[in-house]
Amino acid sequence: MTDPRFPILSALTTPHDIADLSADALPRLASEMREAIIATVSQTGGHLGASLGTVELTIALHCELTSPRDKILWDVGHQAYGHKLLTGRLPDFPTLRQHGGMSGFLRREESEHDVMGAGHASTSVSYGVGLAEAYRAGGLRDHRVACVIGDGAMTGGMAYEGLNQGGALGTPMVVVLNDNGMSISENVGAMARMFQRARVDSTITKVREELERNLARVPGAELVGTHLRDATKALWYQHGALFESLGWAYVGPIDGHDIPALRRAIRTAIEHDRPVLIHAKTVKGKGYHPAENDVEHMHGATPFDPSCGKAHPPSAPPKPTYTEVFGRALVREAENDPRVVAITAAMLKGTGVNHMMDRFPERTYDVGIAEQHGVVFACGLALAGKRPVCAIYSTFLQRAFDPIVHDVALQNLPVVFAIDRGGLVGDDGPTHHGAFDLAYLRSIPNLTVMAPKDEAELVHMLHTALTIDGPVALRYPRGAGPGAALPLAAEQLPVGRGEVLARGERVALVGYGHGVSVARDAAAVLEDALGHPVTLVNARFCKPLDAELLHDLAADHGLLVTVEDHAELAGFGGAVLECLQGTDVRVLTAGLPDRFIEHGKRDLLLADAGLTSSVVAARALDALGCGHPGEGASSTGKDFVEGRHDARGVR
Amino acid sequence: MTDPRFPILSALTTPHDIADLSADALPRLASEMREAIIATVSQTGGHLGASLGTVELTIALHCELTSPRDKILWDVGHQAYGHKLLTGRLPDFPTLRQHGGMSGFLRREESEHDVMGAGHASTSVSYGVGLAEAYRAGGLRDHRVACVIGDGAMTGGMAYEGLNQGGALGTPMVVVLNDNGMSISENVGAMARMFQRARVDSTITKVREELERNLARVPGAELVGTHLRDATKALWYQHGALFESLGWAYVGPIDGHDIPALRRAIRTAIEHDRPVLIHAKTVKGKGYHPAENDVEHMHGATPFDPSCGKAHPPSAPPKPTYTEVFGRALVREAENDPRVVAITAAMLKGTGVNHMMDRFPERTYDVGIAEQHGVVFACGLALAGKRPVCAIYSTFLQRAFDPIVHDVALQNLPVVFAIDRGGLVGDDGPTHHGAFDLAYLRSIPNLTVMAPKDEAELVHMLHTALTIDGPVALRYPRGAGPGAALPLAAEQLPVGRGEVLARGERVALVGYGHGVSVARDAAAVLEDALGHPVTLVNARFCKPLDAELLHDLAADHGLLVTVEDHAELAGFGGAVLECLQGTDVRVLTAGLPDRFIEHGKRDLLLADAGLTSSVVAARALDALGCGHPGEGASSTGKDFVEGRHDARGVR
Repeated sequence: MTDPRFPILSALTTPHDIADLSADALPRLASEMREAIIATVSQTGGHLGASLGTVELTIALHCELTSPRDKILWDVGHQAYGHKLLTGRLPDFPTLRQHGGMSGFLRREESEHDVMGAGHASTSVSYGVGLAEAYRAGGLRDHRVACVIGDGAMTGGMAYEGLNQGGALGTPMVVVLNDNGMSISENVGAMARMFQRARVDSTITKVREELERNLARVPGAELVGTHLRDATKALWYQHGALFESLGWAYVGPIDGHDIPALRRAIRTAIEHDRPVLIHAKTVKGKGYHPAENDVEHMHGATPFDPSCGKAHPPSAPPKPTYTEVFGRALVREAENDPRVVAITAAMLKGTGVNHMMDRFPERTYDVGIAEQHGVVFACGLALAGKRPVCAIYSTFLQRAFDPIVHDVALQNLPVVFAIDRGGLVGDDGPTHHGAFDLAYLRSIPNLTVMAPKDEAELVHMLHTALTIDGPVALRYPRGAGPGAALPLAAEQLPVGRGEVLARGERVALVGYGHGVSVARDAAAVLEDALGHPVTLVNARFCKPLDAELLHDLAADHGLLVTVEDHAELAGFGGAVLECLQGTDVRVLTAGLPDRFIEHGKRDLLLADAGLTSSVVAARALDALGCGHPGEGASSTGKDFVEGRHDARGVR
Repeated sequence: MTDPRFPILSALTTPHDIADLSADALPRLASEMREAIIATVSQTGGHLGASLGTVELTIALHCELTSPRDKILWDVGHQAYGHKLLTGRLPDFPTLRQHGGMSGFLRREESEHDVMGAGHASTSVSYGVGLAEAYRAGGLRDHRVACVIGDGAMTGGMAYEGLNQGGALGTPMVVVLNDNGMSISENVGAMARMFQRARVDSTITKVREELERNLARVPGAELVGTHLRDATKALWYQHGALFESLGWAYVGPIDGHDIPALRRAIRTAIEHDRPVLIHAKTVKGKGYHPAENDVEHMHGATPFDPSCGKAHPPSAPPKPTYTEVFGRALVREAENDPRVVAITAAMLKGTGVNHMMDRFPERTYDVGIAEQHGVVFACGLALAGKRPVCAIYSTFLQRAFDPIVHDVALQNLPVVFAIDRGGLVGDDGPTHHGAFDLAYLRSIPNLTVMAPKDEAELVHMLHTALTIDGPVALRYPRGAGPGAALPLAAEQLPVGRGEVLARGERVALVGYGHGVSVARDAAAVLEDALGHPVTLVNARFCKPLDAELLHDLAADHGLLVTVEDHAELAGFGGAVLECLQGTDVRVLTAGLPDRFIEHGKRDLLLADAGLTSSVVAARALDALGCGHPGEGASSTGKDFVEGRHDARGVR
């Protein structure tokens, strides 16, 4: 059933059908795809610019390759909305990034055309080398593999590791470098400059033929054989030297919006019996002026008016996000201490480090999508007396786990990790939730690990972190907090000490980070149900734990309930259990269940995960033998408690 | 006080003193350094070949730079024995790798000349960029920074990330590529081939001058200006193109054993106002024939006879190591299942994957020091129907934490991680202990996590892992196990089920992996002291935990003691506490204390860490209110129990 708005697109049965379309139908298909993308993303929000920039590339790839037999791998997957549209997902496209709907990235569960799932950058080449090698070993020569990777993702070391092995194996495959000169914010690093040179070299093509003719007459040239050919190639394609060095034939740069040129390049590449890299230059946001003109804003767009690209005005003045509070607090710390420097990994605005960049550009480093390097770079700065603050999302900091152990903590260097997007992030889904940071951080010696209960405490904690003579991890969630008034001056908090917010009896609720808000509301439910006040604690530190406070609580209360927006395994609750081992107090831990959590609005996901005040209160009452609270508890809460009992079997 | 065996070396006061030595004294100094290295390493074992290969480079660097004002950074640090000798550590050198003695790597605590600590590869460039950038920002132009990195370490993506940012910043610094054509085993990847080409290009230098003269006469050449200069440079230094692309001036290749040539190159490089890479070709094991001839064996040598290089014969026939048992079991699995392929990251012999390489070379991949890529490469192979086994040490697998979460577990791909060197590794020390793998793995959904109690169970577990349709992590310690007879056929173990080894009362000891041996011996001590049998359990699985068994144990026993050779935070004990939350059983966890553990013999370190049967038994008796066992407990045990009580304060 065709859709009159998208006559060509909606008539497709398989993506490869487009190979049979007439040459002039393909640009019209491209227009339809752009319209479909803008129509949906203006409603749902999403990665607009990247996907608008790859429409022609998507068409060319599906023309020349036959998916799903051939494998098209999209690095990160945020530029693959066009691929979704060509692979039968036009009807469901309006559910993009909605809970229960289509993912904003690619997912193997969503389509047989989604070869790999991703959300983190720089993995596609490694995946592709593995697939191509398996097909080669199996004699499946007709199974072609093509990876599409952005210039931003190319700053990640894993891409280089993959190119290095792929070039050495020599297994035929294609990598398309989708070079839009941006990763998310402006691209960084020497390689970006090399690509930039490729853009401006126009005179060079003019003299190429003449020089090549004349070079043949140079005495001595014949002696060096292939070296001379390599050199003339390097002359024209100096920007390709890096890839040629790694064993990849280099094709390009070509116009990434010229479908016939792209098709020719892809056809040539797949006919080669070796690894080939095609360098395609694209324009992020192509074909939609608002997205071409404000590339960073339109990278991950919120819903907007499609006629002008302007975001819908918020219905109420928004509360400042944790990110914003952090960014401004960092500037104040830097104003007071010239040793403070900031490091981010291609997430300048996302982490709030843009404020630092505006105020102290010479003390702000964007290392690209290179978290491992960024953390060790911070170690070097710390060795020379600086106080580096690495602002990296929880999920991306996973990339730097080894440097945190081996280079920061073992060397006991004063590096501060400002871990944004701790807990559930919402629409970006399971690749982006920050559910594991306590598990991977709290077993590391020398590290101080903390989380604020609200925005004001974040200001104090950043200040406190910078006074500690050793590594510190400071974690906070995406979005706005409870809305605490921001302090005029940052205060030093006592390290390793929790804060008792209310004293009561029988039950002590101990929240960590966002868990404090949940615990506070759960306390109100419990007080209603029990008829007496309960104790409420803001843990502040996961490491060092406030063992004295915990033992005091254990002595005075029959039940202690921990609440955190982190995996329920190996998190804050586990730390409390370890601390209180051998005591008689009953401890109940509330965290995120042991499964990957889908995408959707954060509140919805938290409810789905059972991390709400009513569920926590219901579990506490259950443990006290008081049954469920009467009218006070939501049905979600009851369902969840029962669900958990079932799921846990003997528990 | 000079040492008559080393007259020049022992007379040095500061390392820079060597700049004043006569030209002919420097080669004699080099000989003395080699003798000192061989004399000690033949007694202590250690990284022989790498350090013999860098003697001249070490001399040249200390001649041209003034340490510690100038910073010389040695990647990994296993090639820096010569640096130790020149920086005042000749007298203590015989304590190399001995408990309480000198580290086998560089350590900031050991000398002001050790700028950074390391043990994992590929970090030095990132450190160096940070240091150089801090000096530039501080106006400290006389603080020069030089990093020495091997060609093996250059396969790691972090090195590339560091070069990319360093080249973009343009901050003056020097990287010396110590190219010995090997990482630990033979080097891999396309870049290695590029370096290999540099070795054989001799004719090219002969025609260089002539062609350069003639090129100036080519019509059209003048039009392309700098591009032509770049191209001629690329003609001669094609192998340098990768570095030039990343913004580094390339110098080389030069003979890494020619002290005057090295000094000239270093002097030129530090005079440049930009990042410079010097490509030095060295011979691993240089100057000691046994090490030149058997490079892999002499990489990390055990004690040997210095006259011939032969390792001392063992006093008793050695038990097979876990590594060896795994390697042979892997071959048998591969014989029975053509889908099985093996992946290692520059640790072919160290992981036992050499057996697989011998038997099935086309199904065995050494990806270089590139753990991130290796794991995602395995994902690609798994997508195409293979059953990849990634054999990587626990400490190095830290580098692949994000791919394990994002690419293996979230995609639920059947990749098996064979995690060698779990727990304490001994002489290599804190950079190499595998103390954190349970903490970073057990919170990841979809993952099965297990550890065998002995060698026979390792065979069964590998077999079982390959039958699970999802990711599996299988962990075992360095060295020999308890010496169990190996089974004729591998058996399928029930997933998520522990094994009750003995039934008793009051106390249940639950061991995980190596912890089972400790628990078994502790059970014997307890039975002596209590006069009745106690229960002994082999947990086998940390995830899924055998919740049913644990609850049964909790119902029947007053005390449950977990034993594991893993950090005591967020490990197996924590998992058991989480599982048994809300029950009345008292749980005591025994693991490695929350501090980095030094180098030394493994048994000594385990005793120092309190992970011995007597300590575990003493803690159990204490918890039962039975006091310490009488004559049966060692004094170490008593000291440790008291020490813990002090350290834990309120606990």
